[in-house]
Amino acid sequence: MKNIGIIGLGLIGGSMAIDLRRKGFAEQIIGVEADPVNAAAAQKIGLVDSVVGMDECVDRSDVVIVSVPVGAALKLIPAVLDRFEQTGAKDKVVMDVCSTKEMLARSVKYHPCRRQYVASHPMSGTEYSGPWAAIPGLFEGRAGIICDHQESSPKAVRTVEELYDTLNMRLIYMNSSNHDVHTAYVSHVSHVTSFALALTVLEKEKDEKHIFDLASGGFSSTVRLAKSGPDMWTPIFMQNRDNVLRVMDTYIDKMNAFRQAIAEGDEEQVRNLIEQANKIRRIIR
Amino acid sequence: MKNIGIIGLGLIGGSMAIDLRRKGFAEQIIGVEADPVNAAAAQKIGLVDSVVGMDECVDRSDVVIVSVPVGAALKLIPAVLDRFEQTGAKDKVVMDVCSTKEMLARSVKYHPCRRQYVASHPMSGTEYSGPWAAIPGLFEGRAGIICDHQESSPKAVRTVEELYDTLNMRLIYMNSSNHDVHTAYVSHVSHVTSFALALTVLEKEKDEKHIFDLASGGFSSTVRLAKSGPDMWTPIFMQNRDNVLRVMDTYIDKMNAFRQAIAEGDEEQVRNLIEQANKIRRIIR
Repeated sequence: MKNIGIIGLGLIGGSMAIDLRRKGFAEQIIGVEADPVNAAAAQKIGLVDSVVGMDECVDRSDVVIVSVPVGAALKLIPAVLDRFEQTGAKDKVVMDVCSTKEMLARSVKYHPCRRQYVASHPMSGTEYSGPWAAIPGLFEGRAGIICDHQESSPKAVRTVEELYDTLNMRLIYMNSSNHDVHTAYVSHVSHVTSFALALTVLEKEKDEKHIFDLASGGFSSTVRLAKSGPDMWTPIFMQNRDNVLRVMDTYIDKMNAFRQAIAEGDEEQVRNLIEQANKIRRIIR
Repeated sequence: MKNIGIIGLGLIGGSMAIDLRRKGFAEQIIGVEADPVNAAAAQKIGLVDSVVGMDECVDRSDVVIVSVPVGAALKLIPAVLDRFEQTGAKDKVVMDVCSTKEMLARSVKYHPCRRQYVASHPMSGTEYSGPWAAIPGLFEGRAGIICDHQESSPKAVRTVEELYDTLNMRLIYMNSSNHDVHTAYVSHVSHVTSFALALTVLEKEKDEKHIFDLASGGFSSTVRLAKSGPDMWTPIFMQNRDNVLRVMDTYIDKMNAFRQAIAEGDEEQVRNLIEQANKIRRIIR
């Protein structure tokens, strides 16, 4: 049992808190939360034992989980490592849960306490945010990615592996740069397509009642990610810009190929494109 | 209780068969199915009492449901009305369940038995097809659209209203042309975006294992519709071409706006686009 510090008590941090306590990994959970409304809610819901300042949280925790949007994490992770250094805390570990990894890796590359940081990304979430969005079992069976594990001390890596194991995650190892390429494909661009779909329908369909009346399950599932908030997603697109743009370009090409086939009434080509797309059945259950 | 004929024993026809029987609307259900494998399966599963030829099905049914892809329906609905005329069957009703309506409406506009046809679209489905995809409760709470009801006899409309009522659908009335505009927005284009996403990921991510390992719930729900088959969707895009192209153009504009904001590192504009897209929360639960 460990003392866990969680910086950022939103969907991910809060859901980790629930399961790490429930499953006996955490002895005590101390939180840091900049937003006073979220902080009060996190305490009221019982996600954390107390909400304190950053230094106190780091000093009282064995493992610090940084679960804030990637822009903020870029400053916070080095700050936590600074505190480790200042206080001579050689056994503590800090991990993050961010959706982009390369810029983070660069920000700590030469930090004297680099080996106490484990870069990680639990691939789970919902379109909701804040401590009230936290749910048990969020990470069950999902991929828990550990990046650049050779840059961290084996002991620190082992701690994070045990933590993800407690959450029943499937551990996957890759380097930061590959991580950012792959997540651009299978996560970041599907958010852009969903945002664009919402914008299209909201602009074209002025009468919201029609959207509400006619939206079938198919539309709802495709547009679901468009409910995801800008605080999380703006910095992801900024930090993973080159990869995201490359995938978007391919995507726009595919849309144009569809557009042309439909415009030309080329039934065979439309059928052909759909059949190619159907191959996703082999991969996604 | 009525004798129901179902032409096309796939997901929609099969799911209607299950609930119309279960809820006591149908006395007997007779099917027509061109594909011998599907026909044998539909009988084995027990969706229908027997599978017969088209004329026999029409002659033995009070209500004929045409549940085939829109291309085939374009020929079948006039053929069913022809049979009504030949046999002097003035009390029978034929309805369809197709996702595009304007071309169908044109195909029967001057048919002497036009008033025995009710154009309808139950807005429900899954990404699977065939009789084995049929499930109970598929239509529960969904929109059941009746188009151009003034072109049908009040008695025929009432029959279809009762049928949809039995399936617990919410009845909505509109003309064919508006139907095709609205469904382009909230259904057809979300299929194109999903197909394009699948094509993009399959092309970019050569290693399928990575897609499988990393696909989170968000990606899966966005790409789900890309499992939908070409037999259903090719004719929809062909028949609703102008509306679909118009919405696709707006969509491609939105993607380009996103692309530009990300490429320029314009954080404020990215945030702004996401916030606008988030308004979909007001409409989709």
